[in-house]
Amino acid sequence: MLPVELLHKVREQNPLVHNITNIVVANDSANGLLAIGASPFMSNTPAEMAEVAKLADVVVLNMGTLDDQQLNAMKIAGKTCNEFGKPVVLDPVGAGATTYRKKAAETLLHAIQFDLIKGNAGEIAALAGAVWQAKGVDAGDGEADLSEIAKTCARKYHAIVAVSGKVDVITDGHSVIKIENGTEYFTKMTGAGCLLSCICGAFLAVAEKNDYLAAAATAVTMYGLAGEITAEKLPLCLNGSFRTGLLDELSVITAENILEGGKINDIDQ
Amino acid sequence: MLPVELLHKVREQNPLVHNITNIVVANDSANGLLAIGASPFMSNTPAEMAEVAKLADVVVLNMGTLDDQQLNAMKIAGKTCNEFGKPVVLDPVGAGATTYRKKAAETLLHAIQFDLIKGNAGEIAALAGAVWQAKGVDAGDGEADLSEIAKTCARKYHAIVAVSGKVDVITDGHSVIKIENGTEYFTKMTGAGCLLSCICGAFLAVAEKNDYLAAAATAVTMYGLAGEITAEKLPLCLNGSFRTGLLDELSVITAENILEGGKINDIDQ
Amino acid sequence: MLPVELLHKVREQNPLVHNITNIVVANDSANGLLAIGASPFMSNTPAEMAEVAKLADVVVLNMGTLDDQQLNAMKIAGKTCNEFGKPVVLDPVGAGATTYRKKAAETLLHAIQFDLIKGNAGEIAALAGAVWQAKGVDAGDGEADLSEIAKTCARKYHAIVAVSGKVDVITDGHSVIKIENGTEYFTKMTGAGCLLSCICGAFLAVAEKNDYLAAAATAVTMYGLAGEITAEKLPLCLNGSFRTGLLDELSVITAENILEGGKINDIDQ
Repeated sequence: MLPVELLHKVREQNPLVHNITNIVVANDSANGLLAIGASPFMSNTPAEMAEVAKLADVVVLNMGTLDDQQLNAMKIAGKTCNEFGKPVVLDPVGAGATTYRKKAAETLLHAIQFDLIKGNAGEIAALAGAVWQAKGVDAGDGEADLSEIAKTCARKYHAIVAVSGKVDVITDGHSVIKIENGTEYFTKMTGAGCLLSCICGAFLAVAEKNDYLAAAATAVTMYGLAGEITAEKLPLCLNGSFRTGLLDELSVITAENILEGGKINDIDQ
Repeated sequence: MLPVELLHKVREQNPLVHNITNIVVANDSANGLLAIGASPFMSNTPAEMAEVAKLADVVVLNMGTLDDQQLNAMKIAGKTCNEFGKPVVLDPVGAGATTYRKKAAETLLHAIQFDLIKGNAGEIAALAGAVWQAKGVDAGDGEADLSEIAKTCARKYHAIVAVSGKVDVITDGHSVIKIENGTEYFTKMTGAGCLLSCICGAFLAVAEKNDYLAAAATAVTMYGLAGEITAEKLPLCLNGSFRTGLLDELSVITAENILEGGKINDIDQ
Repeated sequence: MLPVELLHKVREQNPLVHNITNIVVANDSANGLLAIGASPFMSNTPAEMAEVAKLADVVVLNMGTLDDQQLNAMKIAGKTCNEFGKPVVLDPVGAGATTYRKKAAETLLHAIQFDLIKGNAGEIAALAGAVWQAKGVDAGDGEADLSEIAKTCARKYHAIVAVSGKVDVITDGHSVIKIENGTEYFTKMTGAGCLLSCICGAFLAVAEKNDYLAAAATAVTMYGLAGEITAEKLPLCLNGSFRTGLLDELSVITAENILEGGKINDIDQ
């Protein structure tokens, strides 16, 4: 059973979520974090990164519009988290798309011990060294077994891995949780995956370290379900309204909703 | 009585508001300025800062995702405003949160004579040298008298100071105006305070220099009231809809609304 | 007759549209591209520009918050497009406003053979060397004949030129197409013109090279019509709702809508 009480904790403790993120999604990520009750902080400036990471309850590193200065800031923030025992999340946006991003992800994964890596299939496959056909920052298609790829990635980097997609796959390298909540609309909203990474971060911030797998699974379930509920209310394929509605839904969704609406399969292995 | 005719002037004169601002709120700030009838211009590039500041009717400096290049651009833009007698506004985002931002704010306040400093309690307290517990870029809590802190800040920097919060406090260091319009939703929309700074800038742009206190008070009242009206129309705590509704309301709010709905206490001292 | 089947092609082929763009509009541009069925990619990092341009089906260069690093990235991306025969679009935001931007546009136009230049009157006049009074990034006013200015610009740079405005003018330097779809709301939504450039890019990506004039005209007509339909549904001058509604409409507008609602005058000369 999912630790849905973490949602209450997020709303009570308002964890400070520091995001090093991209120019496309910064606004939605901040508003999405506010919607679930967390406090967003966005900064890319190396000169304040250690101080911000110390203030924060979790740090989320998103490679969406990465450059060298931002990469430097990420290393400082991530190492500070490791030093102070705070959770740190990687969203390796586009790691499957360009050499620069793949190398940057490797640099980060070498310098920082991540608690959670959240990406789409193309990104996680790139990190795991698996064959996959990514398309830009989109997931793309592949034949390999996603659970195996996710487990390989998780073992390689000693981190929990969450792969977002039609079925979300979350694993610590041993147990695998599959979540079937969600909606096609997520693929039509830029930064939908980026916001999920932020929300996972907020849940990790209020969880115990040995509950991170369940915490991530709860965040992923809640987010997928919020999208589902939003989509059900829309009469047509209406992209603008979905985005507004998702932020609305995230601000009212309850632990009870997650218990009732979550579509989860635990696969212990 | 508030000079509500400034709203007409903004809509007639469409002042050009140059913003050096952050990646999180740039879009909402631009749309909010368009909604009230102003023309937004966003640029951070030192090479064009003097020229842009000369073109602009007001410059608004926002430290939300500050770095050294942006700080440099801010100095050029602010000094140009001073030279040409144009109003210049500081939004010291996060000045209460990190040493880098606090120092940057001091650098700007040393180099530029600001007409208005608009921040939350944590930020203004940091500039005034008062004790306050900020939380990231959020206001935080404190025991001290906000009016006294605001007056201290205003006298120290010879600028009007506006502190946004549950009760907004605006002062030139002598007179204090308190405004009780607003809604909890503002704390749930990222960049709500940043947009207020831009709107204050637009009002200063069409006001006489010795009316800046009243102009800022009018902008703050209008903005708080627009939020209030928007919130009244929403059935639940719905974050996404509030943001859309606020932009709607800003585009139709009238001088008469402000006169009728403004909740203002003048405290001459 | 417009090649409206290009809209189907966009929705079937999901062209990858690489945007080097500004912090104000990046989110709306990405969501607008997703709404019509294209795949957005945003990056400004010189180190990955050649690789991204090779992956992309079209590159759109937008000068909205240009700086030297971004200019460098634009040159690499644009030259790569030229080398591989991919379409490349310039949106010279603010080229009529500052010397820095005008020079940057000239640098780009010298280094890159553009397929389409899309701007407002002030921007296109600046590139054509015509007299026009721009206002910041807004179009401004002028007396000269817009069709002549557009033709001059098109001939000077051997590119198709699209001038957005109350009446949109599109030309290859010889034929001129005027489109009267649209709504005042576009002037109240930041980045409305930027999104149009992206959408033109998506249409070019699925068109044959000798059909680019008609492809751009189709994109402009569709976009203006989507705004028109959105505006008709709004009871008042409501800026926030227009933006949401436009994204909704872009996700459902059909080729049949364009054929029925397009207001086009072909002027062969």
